[in-house]
Amino acid sequence: MTTTKAIAVSAALALSATPVLADDLATTTFRDYVDAEGNISLPSNARNSWVHLGSWVVNDADAPGAGFHDVYTQPEAARAYRETGEFADGTVLIKEIRSIESGTKTTGPALWAGEPQIWFVMVKDNQNRFDGPHWGKGWGWGLYKADNPAVNVSESFEATCMGCHVPAQDTGWVFVEGYPTLK
Amino acid sequence: MTTTKAIAVSAALALSATPVLADDLATTTFRDYVDAEGNISLPSNARNSWVHLGSWVVNDADAPGAGFHDVYTQPEAARAYRETGEFADGTVLIKEIRSIESGTKTTGPALWAGEPQIWFVMVKDNQNRFDGPHWGKGWGWGLYKADNPAVNVSESFEATCMGCHVPAQDTGWVFVEGYPTLK
Repeated sequence: MTTTKAIAVSAALALSATPVLADDLATTTFRDYVDAEGNISLPSNARNSWVHLGSWVVNDADAPGAGFHDVYTQPEAARAYRETGEFADGTVLIKEIRSIESGTKTTGPALWAGEPQIWFVMVKDNQNRFDGPHWGKGWGWGLYKADNPAVNVSESFEATCMGCHVPAQDTGWVFVEGYPTLK
Repeated sequence: MTTTKAIAVSAALALSATPVLADDLATTTFRDYVDAEGNISLPSNARNSWVHLGSWVVNDADAPGAGFHDVYTQPEAARAYRETGEFADGTVLIKEIRSIESGTKTTGPALWAGEPQIWFVMVKDNQNRFDGPHWGKGWGWGLYKADNPAVNVSESFEATCMGCHVPAQDTGWVFVEGYPTLK
Protein backbone atom coordinates (compact mmCIF):
# COMPACT_ATOMS: atom_id res chain seq x y z
CA MET A 1 0.00 0.00 0.00
CA THR A 2 1.37 3.43 -0.88
CA THR A 3 1.24 6.29 1.55
CA THR A 4 -1.39 8.04 -0.58
CA LYS A 5 -3.56 4.95 -0.69
CA ALA A 6 -3.18 4.38 3.05
CA ILE A 7 -4.25 7.94 3.78
CA ALA A 8 -7.22 7.54 1.47
CA VAL A 9 -8.21 4.33 3.26
CA SER A 10 -7.75 6.07 6.60
CA ALA A 11 -10.02 8.94 5.55
CA ALA A 12 -12.64 6.59 4.14
CA LEU A 13 -12.69 4.49 7.31
CA ALA A 14 -12.98 7.56 9.49
CA LEU A 15 -15.82 8.97 7.40
CA SER A 16 -17.77 5.75 7.14
CA ALA A 17 -17.58 5.05 10.86
CA THR A 18 -18.23 8.59 12.12
CA PRO A 19 -21.64 9.00 13.74
CA VAL A 20 -23.91 11.77 12.47
CA LEU A 21 -23.27 15.01 14.34
CA ALA A 22 -25.92 17.53 15.40
CA ASP A 23 -24.84 19.84 12.59
CA ASP A 24 -25.66 17.13 10.07
CA LEU A 25 -29.19 16.52 11.32
CA ALA A 26 -30.94 18.69 8.73
CA THR A 27 -28.76 17.35 5.92
CA THR A 28 -29.61 13.78 6.81
CA THR A 29 -33.30 14.42 7.37
CA PHE A 30 -33.92 16.40 4.19
CA ARG A 31 -32.03 13.80 2.18
CA ASP A 32 -33.36 10.57 3.69
CA TYR A 33 -36.90 11.34 4.90
CA VAL A 34 -38.08 14.29 2.77
CA ASP A 35 -37.83 14.45 -1.01
CA ALA A 36 -37.28 17.53 -3.17
CA GLU A 37 -41.04 18.13 -3.41
CA GLY A 38 -41.48 18.01 0.36
CA ASN A 39 -43.00 14.54 0.51
CA ILE A 40 -42.30 13.00 3.90
CA SER A 41 -41.57 9.29 4.25
CA LEU A 42 -41.78 7.20 7.40
CA PRO A 43 -38.29 6.32 8.74
CA SER A 44 -38.22 2.56 9.01
CA ASN A 45 -35.83 1.85 11.85
CA ALA A 46 -36.70 4.38 14.55
CA ARG A 47 -37.71 1.89 17.22
CA ASN A 48 -34.49 -0.08 16.89
CA SER A 49 -31.96 2.72 16.58
CA TRP A 50 -33.40 6.06 17.76
CA VAL A 51 -34.04 7.17 21.35
CA HIS A 52 -37.40 6.95 23.06
CA LEU A 53 -38.89 10.22 24.24
CA GLY A 54 -41.86 8.91 26.18
CA SER A 55 -45.16 7.04 26.10
CA TRP A 56 -48.83 7.95 26.27
CA VAL A 57 -51.89 5.83 26.77
CA VAL A 58 -55.25 6.89 25.36
CA ASN A 59 -57.33 4.10 26.82
CA ASP A 60 -60.69 4.90 25.24
CA ALA A 61 -61.26 2.83 22.11
CA ASP A 62 -63.51 5.51 20.62
CA ALA A 63 -61.11 8.43 21.12
CA PRO A 64 -59.02 9.78 18.24
CA GLY A 65 -55.51 8.40 18.66
CA ALA A 66 -56.71 5.62 20.96
CA GLY A 67 -53.89 3.27 21.83
CA PHE A 68 -50.44 3.00 23.34
CA HIS A 69 -48.23 5.83 22.00
CA ASP A 70 -44.44 5.57 21.89
CA VAL A 71 -42.45 8.54 20.62
CA TYR A 72 -38.94 8.37 19.14
CA THR A 73 -36.40 10.83 17.75
CA GLN A 74 -32.83 10.80 16.49
CA PRO A 75 -30.30 10.64 19.35
CA GLU A 76 -28.62 13.86 18.16
CA ALA A 77 -31.99 15.66 17.99
CA ALA A 78 -32.68 14.81 21.64
CA ARG A 79 -29.17 15.92 22.58
CA ALA A 80 -29.63 19.23 20.75
CA TYR A 81 -32.92 19.87 22.55
CA ARG A 82 -31.35 19.17 25.93
CA GLU A 83 -28.66 21.72 25.11
CA THR A 84 -30.85 24.47 23.63
CA GLY A 85 -34.42 23.85 24.81
CA GLU A 86 -35.60 23.90 21.20
CA PHE A 87 -36.08 21.39 18.43
CA ALA A 88 -33.21 21.62 15.94
CA ASP A 89 -33.79 21.94 12.21
CA GLY A 90 -34.16 18.41 10.85
CA THR A 91 -35.49 16.87 14.06
CA VAL A 92 -37.86 14.00 13.25
CA LEU A 93 -40.45 12.85 15.77
CA ILE A 94 -42.25 9.57 15.26
CA LYS A 95 -45.26 8.67 17.33
CA GLU A 96 -46.02 4.97 16.95
CA ILE A 97 -49.54 4.08 18.03
CA ARG A 98 -50.10 0.44 18.91
CA SER A 99 -53.10 -1.45 20.18
CA ILE A 100 -53.52 -1.68 23.94
CA GLU A 101 -53.07 -5.15 25.37
CA SER A 102 -54.16 -5.87 28.89
CA GLY A 103 -54.05 -8.70 31.36
CA THR A 104 -53.57 -9.63 34.96
CA LYS A 105 -50.00 -10.16 36.11
CA THR A 106 -48.88 -10.99 39.64
CA THR A 107 -48.90 -7.21 40.23
CA GLY A 108 -52.55 -7.02 39.19
CA PRO A 109 -54.04 -5.54 36.03
CA ALA A 110 -51.49 -4.19 33.55
CA LEU A 111 -51.52 -2.51 30.15
CA TRP A 112 -48.92 -2.89 27.43
CA ALA A 113 -48.59 -2.27 23.70
CA GLY A 114 -49.62 -4.68 20.95
CA GLU A 115 -49.25 -4.44 17.19
CA PRO A 116 -48.46 -1.11 15.49
CA GLN A 117 -51.45 0.54 13.86
CA ILE A 118 -50.42 4.02 12.78
CA TRP A 119 -47.50 6.41 12.90
CA PHE A 120 -47.55 10.20 13.12
CA VAL A 121 -44.39 11.93 11.91
CA MET A 122 -43.24 15.51 12.47
CA VAL A 123 -40.19 17.01 10.69
CA LYS A 124 -38.77 20.26 12.05
CA ASP A 125 -38.24 22.83 9.30
CA ASN A 126 -36.79 26.13 10.43
CA GLN A 127 -36.28 27.39 6.87
CA ASN A 128 -39.81 27.24 5.44
CA ARG A 129 -38.54 24.93 2.73
CA PHE A 130 -41.93 23.78 1.49
CA ASP A 131 -45.48 24.93 0.86
CA GLY A 132 -48.52 22.70 0.68
CA PRO A 133 -50.94 21.00 3.01
CA HIS A 134 -48.33 19.01 5.00
CA TRP A 135 -46.07 21.90 6.02
CA GLY A 136 -46.75 24.61 8.56
CA LYS A 137 -46.15 25.87 12.10
CA GLY A 138 -42.45 25.13 11.59
CA TRP A 139 -42.99 21.44 10.95
CA GLY A 140 -43.81 18.91 8.27
CA TRP A 141 -46.58 16.52 9.30
CA GLY A 142 -47.38 12.98 8.14
CA LEU A 143 -49.68 10.07 8.97
CA TYR A 144 -48.99 6.48 7.96
CA LYS A 145 -51.05 3.34 8.50
CA ALA A 146 -49.80 -0.16 9.10
CA ASP A 147 -51.47 -1.56 5.97
CA ASN A 148 -49.37 0.74 3.76
CA PRO A 149 -46.62 2.60 5.65
CA ALA A 150 -45.20 3.95 2.37
CA VAL A 151 -47.99 6.48 1.87
CA ASN A 152 -48.66 9.67 3.82
CA VAL A 153 -52.44 9.55 4.27
CA SER A 154 -52.75 12.81 6.20
CA GLU A 155 -55.32 15.05 4.54
CA SER A 156 -53.46 18.14 5.70
CA PHE A 157 -51.71 19.09 8.90
CA GLU A 158 -54.57 21.41 9.79
CA ALA A 159 -57.28 18.81 9.23
CA THR A 160 -55.42 15.75 10.55
CA CYS A 161 -52.97 16.98 13.19
CA MET A 162 -53.93 20.32 14.70
CA GLY A 163 -57.00 19.01 16.50
CA CYS A 164 -54.78 17.15 18.93
CA HIS A 165 -51.72 19.43 18.89
CA VAL A 166 -53.29 22.81 19.65
CA PRO A 167 -52.79 22.40 23.43
CA ALA A 168 -49.04 22.04 22.79
CA GLN A 169 -48.72 25.32 20.88
CA ASP A 170 -46.63 26.96 23.61
CA THR A 171 -44.06 24.15 23.59
CA GLY A 172 -43.36 24.10 19.86
CA TRP A 173 -46.48 22.01 19.09
CA VAL A 174 -45.01 19.03 20.97
CA PHE A 175 -46.22 17.62 24.31
CA VAL A 176 -42.79 17.86 25.89
CA GLU A 177 -44.12 17.34 29.42
CA GLY A 178 -44.22 13.60 28.70
CA TYR A 179 -40.66 13.38 27.38
CA PRO A 180 -38.02 12.96 30.09
CA THR A 181 -35.38 12.31 27.43
CA LEU A 182 -35.56 16.02 26.56
CA LYS A 183 -34.81 17.19 30.12
CA MET B 1 3.76 10.46 6.72
CA THR B 2 5.32 7.07 6.06
CA THR B 3 3.23 4.19 4.86
CA THR B 4 3.62 2.48 8.23
CA LYS B 5 2.50 5.55 10.12
CA ALA B 6 -0.42 6.08 7.77
CA ILE B 7 -1.59 2.50 8.27
CA ALA B 8 -1.27 2.92 12.02
CA VAL B 9 -3.34 6.09 11.89
CA SER B 10 -5.87 4.32 9.71
CA ALA B 11 -6.17 1.46 12.17
CA ALA B 12 -6.43 3.78 15.15
CA LEU B 13 -9.17 5.83 13.51
CA ALA B 14 -11.09 2.75 12.56
CA LEU B 15 -10.83 1.32 16.07
CA SER B 16 -11.73 4.53 17.86
CA ALA B 17 -14.81 5.10 15.73
CA THR B 18 -16.05 1.52 15.69
CA PRO B 19 -19.22 1.03 17.74
CA VAL B 20 -19.28 -1.73 20.35
CA LEU B 21 -20.01 -5.07 18.70
CA ALA B 22 -22.20 -7.82 20.11
CA ASP B 23 -19.10 -9.82 21.01
CA ASP B 24 -17.97 -6.98 23.27
CA LEU B 25 -21.22 -6.75 25.19
CA ALA B 26 -20.13 -8.93 28.11
CA THR B 27 -16.75 -7.23 28.33
CA THR B 28 -18.37 -3.82 28.57
CA THR B 29 -21.08 -4.87 30.98
CA PHE B 30 -18.86 -6.73 33.43
CA ARG B 31 -16.41 -3.84 33.42
CA ASP B 32 -18.79 -0.86 33.61
CA TYR B 33 -21.88 -2.09 35.48
CA VAL B 34 -20.70 -5.02 37.62
CA ASP B 35 -17.66 -4.95 39.86
CA ALA B 36 -15.32 -7.83 40.71
CA GLU B 37 -17.49 -8.83 43.69
CA GLY B 38 -20.65 -8.95 41.59
CA ASN B 39 -22.11 -5.67 42.81
CA ILE B 40 -24.40 -4.26 40.15
CA SER B 41 -24.63 -0.52 39.56
CA LEU B 42 -27.38 1.37 37.77
CA PRO B 43 -26.25 2.54 34.30
CA SER B 44 -26.85 6.27 34.25
CA ASN B 45 -27.53 7.08 30.62
CA ALA B 46 -29.85 4.33 29.39
CA ARG B 47 -32.79 6.55 28.56
CA ASN B 48 -30.70 8.88 26.43
CA SER B 49 -28.52 6.39 24.58
CA TRP B 50 -29.98 2.87 24.71
CA VAL B 51 -32.97 1.50 22.81
CA HIS B 52 -36.44 1.26 24.25
CA LEU B 53 -37.93 -2.21 24.45
CA GLY B 54 -41.46 -1.35 25.52
CA SER B 55 -43.74 0.14 28.15
CA TRP B 56 -46.13 -1.17 30.79
CA VAL B 57 -48.70 0.57 32.89
CA VAL B 58 -49.69 -0.79 36.30
CA ASN B 59 -52.46 1.67 37.05
CA ASP B 60 -53.33 0.58 40.60
CA ALA B 61 -51.55 2.72 43.16
CA ASP B 62 -51.57 -0.12 45.70
CA ALA B 63 -50.07 -2.77 43.42
CA PRO B 64 -46.39 -3.71 43.63
CA GLY B 65 -44.62 -1.98 40.77
CA ALA B 66 -47.44 0.53 40.33
CA GLY B 67 -46.54 3.13 37.73
CA PHE B 68 -45.49 3.70 34.15
CA HIS B 69 -42.74 1.23 33.23
CA ASP B 70 -40.25 1.90 30.44
CA VAL B 71 -37.68 -0.76 29.60
CA TYR B 72 -34.32 -0.11 27.92
CA THR B 73 -31.37 -2.21 26.76
CA GLN B 74 -28.11 -1.72 24.87
CA PRO B 75 -28.68 -1.42 21.10
CA GLU B 76 -26.33 -4.37 20.45
CA ALA B 77 -28.17 -6.52 23.01
CA ALA B 78 -31.46 -5.95 21.20
CA ARG B 79 -29.78 -6.72 17.89
CA ALA B 80 -28.33 -9.95 19.26
CA TYR B 81 -31.75 -11.04 20.54
CA ARG B 82 -33.36 -10.36 17.18
CA GLU B 83 -30.73 -12.55 15.55
CA THR B 84 -30.71 -15.43 18.04
CA GLY B 85 -33.96 -15.27 20.01
CA GLU B 86 -31.98 -15.27 23.25
CA PHE B 87 -30.47 -12.68 25.56
CA ALA B 88 -26.73 -12.46 24.99
CA ASP B 89 -24.24 -12.63 27.84
CA GLY B 90 -23.84 -9.10 29.19
CA THR B 91 -27.30 -7.88 28.18
CA VAL B 92 -28.52 -5.26 30.65
CA LEU B 93 -32.24 -4.55 31.01
CA ILE B 94 -33.37 -1.45 32.89
CA LYS B 95 -36.98 -1.01 33.87
CA GLU B 96 -37.61 2.60 34.88
CA ILE B 97 -40.79 3.02 36.90
CA ARG B 98 -42.23 6.52 36.92
CA SER B 99 -45.33 7.98 38.48
CA ILE B 100 -48.47 7.97 36.35
CA GLU B 101 -49.66 11.39 35.26
CA SER B 102 -53.12 11.79 33.82
CA GLY B 103 -55.22 14.50 32.30
CA THR B 104 -57.74 15.28 29.63
CA LYS B 105 -56.38 16.14 26.22
CA THR B 106 -58.44 16.91 23.11
CA THR B 107 -58.45 13.13 22.55
CA GLY B 108 -60.00 12.60 25.98
CA PRO B 109 -58.40 11.12 29.09
CA ALA B 110 -54.73 10.20 28.70
CA LEU B 111 -51.97 8.70 30.84
CA TRP B 112 -48.28 9.50 30.67
CA ALA B 113 -45.18 9.12 32.81
CA GLY B 114 -44.03 11.55 35.50
CA GLU B 115 -40.92 11.55 37.64
CA PRO B 116 -38.74 8.42 37.98
CA GLN B 117 -39.26 6.53 41.22
CA ILE B 118 -37.38 3.25 40.98
CA TRP B 119 -35.34 1.22 38.55
CA PHE B 120 -35.09 -2.56 38.26
CA VAL B 121 -31.95 -3.86 36.57
CA MET B 122 -31.22 -7.32 35.16
CA VAL B 123 -27.75 -8.37 33.94
CA LYS B 124 -27.49 -11.52 31.80
CA ASP B 125 -24.78 -13.85 33.06
CA ASN B 126 -24.34 -17.03 31.06
CA GLN B 127 -21.18 -18.05 32.93
CA ASN B 128 -22.37 -18.20 36.54
CA ARG B 129 -19.76 -15.61 37.45
CA PHE B 130 -21.15 -14.79 40.90
CA ASP B 131 -22.81 -16.30 43.93
CA GLY B 132 -24.87 -14.42 46.47
CA PRO B 133 -28.39 -13.10 46.87
CA HIS B 134 -28.44 -10.97 43.70
CA TRP B 135 -27.43 -13.63 41.19
CA GLY B 136 -29.50 -16.54 39.92
CA LYS B 137 -31.64 -17.91 37.08
CA GLY B 138 -28.96 -16.73 34.65
CA TRP B 139 -29.24 -13.08 35.66
CA GLY B 140 -28.02 -10.53 38.17
CA TRP B 141 -30.86 -8.51 39.71
CA GLY B 142 -30.90 -5.04 41.24
CA LEU B 143 -33.33 -2.45 42.58
CA TYR B 144 -32.53 1.25 42.90
CA LYS B 145 -34.63 4.09 44.27
CA ALA B 146 -34.67 7.68 43.12
CA ASP B 147 -33.54 9.05 46.49
CA ASN B 148 -30.25 7.13 46.22
CA PRO B 149 -29.69 5.49 42.82
CA ALA B 150 -26.16 4.48 43.79
CA VAL B 151 -27.28 1.67 46.10
CA ASN B 152 -28.83 -1.66 45.17
CA VAL B 153 -31.61 -2.00 47.76
CA SER B 154 -32.90 -5.37 46.57
CA GLU B 155 -33.05 -7.78 49.49
CA SER B 156 -32.37 -10.72 47.17
CA PHE B 157 -33.56 -11.63 43.72
CA GLU B 158 -35.81 -14.28 45.18
CA ALA B 159 -37.43 -11.97 47.73
CA THR B 160 -37.57 -8.81 45.63
CA CYS B 161 -37.85 -9.90 42.00
CA MET B 162 -39.24 -13.41 41.58
CA GLY B 163 -42.73 -12.54 42.78
CA CYS B 164 -43.35 -10.59 39.62
CA HIS B 165 -41.10 -12.49 37.22
CA VAL B 166 -42.28 -16.06 37.73
CA PRO B 167 -44.87 -15.80 34.91
CA ALA B 168 -42.01 -15.00 32.49
CA GLN B 169 -40.00 -18.11 33.32
CA ASP B 170 -40.53 -19.66 29.89
CA THR B 171 -39.18 -16.59 28.10
CA GLY B 172 -35.91 -16.25 29.99
CA TRP B 173 -37.57 -14.49 32.97
CA VAL B 174 -38.39 -11.46 30.78
CA PHE B 175 -41.85 -10.38 29.61
CA VAL B 176 -40.82 -10.32 25.96
CA GLU B 177 -44.41 -10.13 24.70
CA GLY B 178 -44.36 -6.41 25.44
CA TYR B 179 -41.09 -5.72 23.61
CA PRO B 180 -41.51 -5.15 19.86
CA THR B 181 -37.87 -4.07 19.59
CA LEU B 182 -36.89 -7.73 20.10
CA LYS B 183 -38.99 -8.99 17.19
